[in-house]
Amino acid sequence: MSDQAFRAIGATTFLSPLPAVLVSCRGTEPGFDRDNMITIGWTGVINSDPPMVYVSIRKERHSHAQVSQSGVFCINLTDETLCRATDYCGVKSGRDVDKFAELGLHAFEVEGFGAPALAEAPLFLCCRVERVIELGSHDMFMAKVEQVYVRDSLFREDGSLKMADFELVCYAHGEYFALKDRPMGFFGYSLANEDVIRRRLVEPYEKKKDKKEKKEKKAKSDKPGKKEQHKDKKEKKAKPGKKKHAFRMRMQDAPVKPRTNA
Amino acid sequence: MSDQAFRAIGATTFLSPLPAVLVSCRGTEPGFDRDNMITIGWTGVINSDPPMVYVSIRKERHSHAQVSQSGVFCINLTDETLCRATDYCGVKSGRDVDKFAELGLHAFEVEGFGAPALAEAPLFLCCRVERVIELGSHDMFMAKVEQVYVRDSLFREDGSLKMADFELVCYAHGEYFALKDRPMGFFGYSLANEDVIRRRLVEPYEKKKDKKEKKEKKAKSDKPGKKEQHKDKKEKKAKPGKKKHAFRMRMQDAPVKPRTNA
Repeated sequence: MSDQAFRAIGATTFLSPLPAVLVSCRGTEPGFDRDNMITIGWTGVINSDPPMVYVSIRKERHSHAQVSQSGVFCINLTDETLCRATDYCGVKSGRDVDKFAELGLHAFEVEGFGAPALAEAPLFLCCRVERVIELGSHDMFMAKVEQVYVRDSLFREDGSLKMADFELVCYAHGEYFALKDRPMGFFGYSLANEDVIRRRLVEPYEKKKDKKEKKEKKAKSDKPGKKEQHKDKKEKKAKPGKKKHAFRMRMQDAPVKPRTNA
Repeated sequence: MSDQAFRAIGATTFLSPLPAVLVSCRGTEPGFDRDNMITIGWTGVINSDPPMVYVSIRKERHSHAQVSQSGVFCINLTDETLCRATDYCGVKSGRDVDKFAELGLHAFEVEGFGAPALAEAPLFLCCRVERVIELGSHDMFMAKVEQVYVRDSLFREDGSLKMADFELVCYAHGEYFALKDRPMGFFGYSLANEDVIRRRLVEPYEKKKDKKEKKEKKAKSDKPGKKEQHKDKKEKKAKPGKKKHAFRMRMQDAPVKPRTNA
């Protein structure tokens, strides 16, 4: 039976999909003290309470030395706009290039922490190494999560998070994939009643669709030649992408904070 | 600056997206020796050579005892058709219900291994526990991958894998998401030339789209009233979903293999 239904392909690391995150770090010794980012797929949550994660890094990597020296790193989630940068940081070495500068991205300094974060990330976790386990090709850095930061524009007014706006990216067997816009379910949905399912899986996305359609309709009707008054009104209202751009600018113009781990 | 751009939300396990896999296992002691599945998000690759993975399981879980007894488990990747089952197996306990029977799913016996796999999974990894680390709420089972099995219908004739047909599902902050049909990139694409990008990221999906459109066009033209001869020809050709169904039937009708760990 097994020959017909499944084919053995040997012992491989074919667990998918996996996170595709940018781990940012900075060493403390000369030659290692420049802000750096490395793409990591070998990462995950290992404990809920206390919150713990790991990253596995090859011994020969520049970032391996950096994290070993500082004992801290940030895990930056990656979204669709960061996908190309995510790939780039997995191919190039921080020994040779300043990846932040090369990519036009910016380090975000968390005061008193010792590792930079990626200012353009939707979310990052500040992690402190607790234990390192040698496994062969990789060393596994087990770490406690000390704090999580979320981009301000991803919060609703009531303080909840707009998960669909995260536009996260994952890694599956050599390729990067974006997630579909609408979730298939939420934890517990297989036993939830129809009302709950409609409220959580259908209505929010119908509203979003309606909003999008209205916006597009409005954009069409706002062609040159319309009344100036109308145009002014529109400009004061939602400009697609405006908030994000404003955020980028703020990051770019921000003064560099003094380093704390020098 | 940090107050404006990012908001701290405390120390949480907000690493996303994560795998949403079904871990199948079976204990060796009375009361634990029924095939079981548990949904796991706390899993990942920890080493490439040798290939190693981990799963973190709460001590009080039925599956914790089962994996501790047998020392082996299978990680079954989950696809869109398995999403509801994936949620169910994370909510219900194998202590109370036979999840395979409850869900109409089937255990696939890997000869001489000691843990069942999920016959309906697109791919599963056979894993042997090397070390258990207590972390607090969870115990981390570090394991070597011994073999990987892929559903036969996911291979092309040349032996390569049809990754887009996997239709994998992941987990992001309490919700299950399917991946978009088309990858955003492949490892190294940020430095690849245009030809390679076209060949790997554009053409395969244009072909697929063309095929799909042709199929739909054909289906439209094959309405009742057409020549019988034409209809016969079509039936012999591609039937959407046929292969999958045949596979399911094969699994369902298969005799149960003798257990090896009794």
